Amino acid sequence: MIKQVRFAVLGLGRLGYIHAKKLALNNDVQLAHVADALEGRAEQVAGELHVAKWSADPSEVFNDPSIDAVIIATPTGTHAEMIKSAAKSGKHIFVEKPVTRTLEEADEVISIVQEHRVHCMVGFMRRFDPAFVDAKKRIQSGEIGKPLLFKGITRDNPIGKYPISPPVEFIKHSGGIFVDLAIHDYDMARFLMGSEVTSVSARGGIYLQPFIEEYQDADQANTYLQFASGAAGDIESSRNSPYGFDLRCEIIGTEGAIQIGAFRNHDLTLLTSKGNQDMIPIFPDRLLDFYSLEMAHFIACIKNNERPSCTEIDGKAALEIAIAATESYRTGREVKLNR
Amino acid sequence: MIKQVRFAVLGLGRLGYIHAKKLALNNDVQLAHVADALEGRAEQVAGELHVAKWSADPSEVFNDPSIDAVIIATPTGTHAEMIKSAAKSGKHIFVEKPVTRTLEEADEVISIVQEHRVHCMVGFMRRFDPAFVDAKKRIQSGEIGKPLLFKGITRDNPIGKYPISPPVEFIKHSGGIFVDLAIHDYDMARFLMGSEVTSVSARGGIYLQPFIEEYQDADQANTYLQFASGAAGDIESSRNSPYGFDLRCEIIGTEGAIQIGAFRNHDLTLLTSKGNQDMIPIFPDRLLDFYSLEMAHFIACIKNNERPSCTEIDGKAALEIAIAATESYRTGREVKLNR
Amino acid sequence: MIKQVRFAVLGLGRLGYIHAKKLALNNDVQLAHVADALEGRAEQVAGELHVAKWSADPSEVFNDPSIDAVIIATPTGTHAEMIKSAAKSGKHIFVEKPVTRTLEEADEVISIVQEHRVHCMVGFMRRFDPAFVDAKKRIQSGEIGKPLLFKGITRDNPIGKYPISPPVEFIKHSGGIFVDLAIHDYDMARFLMGSEVTSVSARGGIYLQPFIEEYQDADQANTYLQFASGAAGDIESSRNSPYGFDLRCEIIGTEGAIQIGAFRNHDLTLLTSKGNQDMIPIFPDRLLDFYSLEMAHFIACIKNNERPSCTEIDGKAALEIAIAATESYRTGREVKLNR
Amino acid sequence: MIKQVRFAVLGLGRLGYIHAKKLALNNDVQLAHVADALEGRAEQVAGELHVAKWSADPSEVFNDPSIDAVIIATPTGTHAEMIKSAAKSGKHIFVEKPVTRTLEEADEVISIVQEHRVHCMVGFMRRFDPAFVDAKKRIQSGEIGKPLLFKGITRDNPIGKYPISPPVEFIKHSGGIFVDLAIHDYDMARFLMGSEVTSVSARGGIYLQPFIEEYQDADQANTYLQFASGAAGDIESSRNSPYGFDLRCEIIGTEGAIQIGAFRNHDLTLLTSKGNQDMIPIFPDRLLDFYSLEMAHFIACIKNNERPSCTEIDGKAALEIAIAATESYRTGREVKLNR
Repeated sequence: MIKQVRFAVLGLGRLGYIHAKKLALNNDVQLAHVADALEGRAEQVAGELHVAKWSADPSEVFNDPSIDAVIIATPTGTHAEMIKSAAKSGKHIFVEKPVTRTLEEADEVISIVQEHRVHCMVGFMRRFDPAFVDAKKRIQSGEIGKPLLFKGITRDNPIGKYPISPPVEFIKHSGGIFVDLAIHDYDMARFLMGSEVTSVSARGGIYLQPFIEEYQDADQANTYLQFASGAAGDIESSRNSPYGFDLRCEIIGTEGAIQIGAFRNHDLTLLTSKGNQDMIPIFPDRLLDFYSLEMAHFIACIKNNERPSCTEIDGKAALEIAIAATESYRTGREVKLNR
Repeated sequence: MIKQVRFAVLGLGRLGYIHAKKLALNNDVQLAHVADALEGRAEQVAGELHVAKWSADPSEVFNDPSIDAVIIATPTGTHAEMIKSAAKSGKHIFVEKPVTRTLEEADEVISIVQEHRVHCMVGFMRRFDPAFVDAKKRIQSGEIGKPLLFKGITRDNPIGKYPISPPVEFIKHSGGIFVDLAIHDYDMARFLMGSEVTSVSARGGIYLQPFIEEYQDADQANTYLQFASGAAGDIESSRNSPYGFDLRCEIIGTEGAIQIGAFRNHDLTLLTSKGNQDMIPIFPDRLLDFYSLEMAHFIACIKNNERPSCTEIDGKAALEIAIAATESYRTGREVKLNR
Repeated sequence: MIKQVRFAVLGLGRLGYIHAKKLALNNDVQLAHVADALEGRAEQVAGELHVAKWSADPSEVFNDPSIDAVIIATPTGTHAEMIKSAAKSGKHIFVEKPVTRTLEEADEVISIVQEHRVHCMVGFMRRFDPAFVDAKKRIQSGEIGKPLLFKGITRDNPIGKYPISPPVEFIKHSGGIFVDLAIHDYDMARFLMGSEVTSVSARGGIYLQPFIEEYQDADQANTYLQFASGAAGDIESSRNSPYGFDLRCEIIGTEGAIQIGAFRNHDLTLLTSKGNQDMIPIFPDRLLDFYSLEMAHFIACIKNNERPSCTEIDGKAALEIAIAATESYRTGREVKLNR
Repeated sequence: MIKQVRFAVLGLGRLGYIHAKKLALNNDVQLAHVADALEGRAEQVAGELHVAKWSADPSEVFNDPSIDAVIIATPTGTHAEMIKSAAKSGKHIFVEKPVTRTLEEADEVISIVQEHRVHCMVGFMRRFDPAFVDAKKRIQSGEIGKPLLFKGITRDNPIGKYPISPPVEFIKHSGGIFVDLAIHDYDMARFLMGSEVTSVSARGGIYLQPFIEEYQDADQANTYLQFASGAAGDIESSRNSPYGFDLRCEIIGTEGAIQIGAFRNHDLTLLTSKGNQDMIPIFPDRLLDFYSLEMAHFIACIKNNERPSCTEIDGKAALEIAIAATESYRTGREVKLNR
């Protein structure tokens, strides 16, 4: 007989809803509570997914001792507060990236999580893509020799191109392309290269989203990284992909190279008179399985009382690179990281 | 609180061992008993996988009322007897293909399984490969129009080429290339084309395994199928692949075509001075995930008391094609099926 | 200073026109005469391509001693007569496949060509595709060991699907799918396997072109070949491809396999929101370069007085397989070839 | 009757020899003279290729009025002198990249070439790769909308890895990775984006060739470009590729993207138990056809008295970017170009 872990999901936007639905369908756990600040949203989702409790106010969750763990998918600005409340009430935490808005908040979060001895996992779902997992294993076992270059590409849909493209309001408050989008590649760079980033140069521009100018944001950017190991990184980030969601990665070493990144999630190609339909229009089509795999890891960590493989410390490290890239983009200067 | 299903695995050869190991690692179920006729084999596996009971005699399993379900991975010649004993003792059944050795045995099995109201699933694991599942969905929704041609390729390693290549003894008692290997493509043909096979022509030869001549077997063969719908099928089967395991499939319709079959399981390519390492040397590397997915389906069927999507009826239908193909290969004549 | 070879093109249909245009643009040779039985067609093409002479009657060409070589792209039924007249008037001959309509005509042609000591080349353009040339070289040098299986796919557009799809009248008088379309794969099978075909079994059906029933033709077919070497062949032929022109080939040997057949002619992929545009809608897009390369070979053979690498003998050998396949399709029986 | 253009090849190193051999085999032209400063080299090559005249001193070529055109494949430091002498003696010029060592030399060359009304072509062979030609056409016709990003990768073999890898002496005097290797991508960037580069930032390092430190060179580098159109460029250059020669390119626009860069030159894959042999170990395997195509263009320009599509002006423009990249790499600062 196994006890089911009881979950609450805080924030029911695009990602929070995906997590809630997957937890509701998972017989291993119980989705006990959903919360969203938007009037009526929590009730609607609770109805659809047959969740017993719902609220607009997350403090109800924190005050409920029957909840074991929370999924934090609220706006980034609220993450620090949410994590702190959850830790203080003894709940395990899964938080979407970026872990917090600032490095100061990240430091606070790190110390409170450790003090209250809860598990905190950050949602870098690519770490659970079997291709990235396999790459990590092969690099560690020396199959490509010493890694010399990390190359990442993330191209997301432009606004309004597809039903699930990021809405204008989201982009405005996303923290910018480096903090919101490129951060996944920064995390992969650390994960795969096994070395910390020591300097960051970023370039970019505004092509299709003039309204982001007031946020000093970019919709297409390149980040050049230096690692402590001496290796380099070259990351392309875009919100303007005209053909769908495109996520690719290469690691070149002294003895070989690894490439990740077919468009297809599984191995099927549809050929019609319109062309070869092997692309993925929107990010959930590419990533949905990896959300399940990251959640399975989180659940297993709670059950077995083990530290997640990707914690608030990793969340802070990637955020640090993202903030440096934002600064470099705005000033045109290389930014050194203290490591 | 969820009750764990209690399993026994009968037969601990290549496949039985894979199933036992996966069940032992699955927290959702309990692997309660392992059995193998070979002296000491069951005890050895029980020790390794921490299984409480083991035996050389499967009747111990059938007499143990605490066992809910059995995995039958014994030699084909014993399948009918095993299935009947399991059904009579009220246990759910997962049996490897081919379901039985003869059509007469298949008919007996079908009536006893139905009489005792247990679930019986046949291990056509490709039905759980997400690419084939997706193909089925797309074909049913009309994305390729009316299917006109099914094309299947299965090329397995030659004996002794890789550590896990089929041993000579296995091939000798496998029932022949049509019953043992091509049967997966016959099942996929039925699954994807949504129509029954009405005639079978097979050709083939012996290239690298002269010892199979006495079994009137082939190590490379082609089967040409006619479906009731009017569509055709063309299936290549080989035990002589010099470059690894190769499994591909195409379905061509009036409006489009679907292709399945990258060598890679997930999307990673290793490039070295030796070449592009994107091939899969041995079948478990390609299929391991699908064994897990088929088992998950079986477990869910038991928990929810639902009929598996792939039963003893499907097992018999594919066997019928395989037996007709064997006859056609031996006689050089087309064989009609009564449908 | 080099003398220019003087050419005449007989027959200005789809292929004859392609050849005429390429010769007109080639500074190395002179296109001196174009002929077509259709009222006004030769004059129109002569005007467009600035050819000095034109006629409806090919005898004008045969009587003109300044012509060195003829391209025969007239209907198959006229090939034997055209080749004989050209040979008797001492002209070198390039003839489209099939070399003649019957094996008796092929034998006559072979003896007259040899008697008059002219060069005769048959238009199996795949022999000049660099990928097939490379495959041949690799097979001969033993890179795949002993060849065990030849696998060919040719899928052509259905009628009316694209501007340049075969017209109904062409298909009616094409000699059938085996003689007109599969013959390219039969030639490749001989070319690459380095062994002659000893038996032929064909299956097929009529799916989208009911009007071919009166010709006992098929629009989708499979041919199974046996080679003198013991190897096998499996050839798929279709006039119903919904997604464009598809030409692929595999040769599997004891030590390795060769695969030929990206859709793309050169290495460029266009990605749009409609999909991946890497397919080739119509055959000239795939083959145009190979028409140039085969013609370059023919011109070089004339200049250097060398025997073409693909002659009337090869034309007859492929025709023999095609006629056997047609018979097998109609009777359902295997046909042995006398070799 | 056609007059044959008479050629001399100056410099018989790796590339000069490739050009000489191709010209010697080309029946359309006459290779009349080969010259190389190295004792005995010219005589050896003349013997092998049956060239009537040879010399160590190029002035013999310039003084021979029967020579129509020269191929300059001597060390970069001599290019300016060679081009000026050739122009003054009225010979058409094909010169390998970089056109000269400095921008001042390039300016001199431009004015002398124009004064003497000879044709001068720079050897950017990628402009003749059919895939790049097709990409240009598609971009110009608007198939990808407005281009936003140019992405180039050139990874060359490390020294000594393959028989034809660049020798140490060559790399020492190559002018550095930006001027010698990345310059091909700079030319492609201008060619495909249809816009001039206005600023250049480069980063890089020394990984496997410590001896280049004294030249302030890099063996792995990234260049970030800004175009007058507003678009960006991101170019990776490496001399450390462990798996062979890798040349890829992407252009992303507002409506679509183009990708160029299979490893294979033609569409053939060899599968063995060692892996998928679809990579190209050394650059000539990838580029040999394009050397022929660029030379065919040069010959046609001479015959038809037309300006080559890629001249000394293009040579200077790419050199300017390369010199700016070298400066940026050495200083860590962005370099603006005056356009």
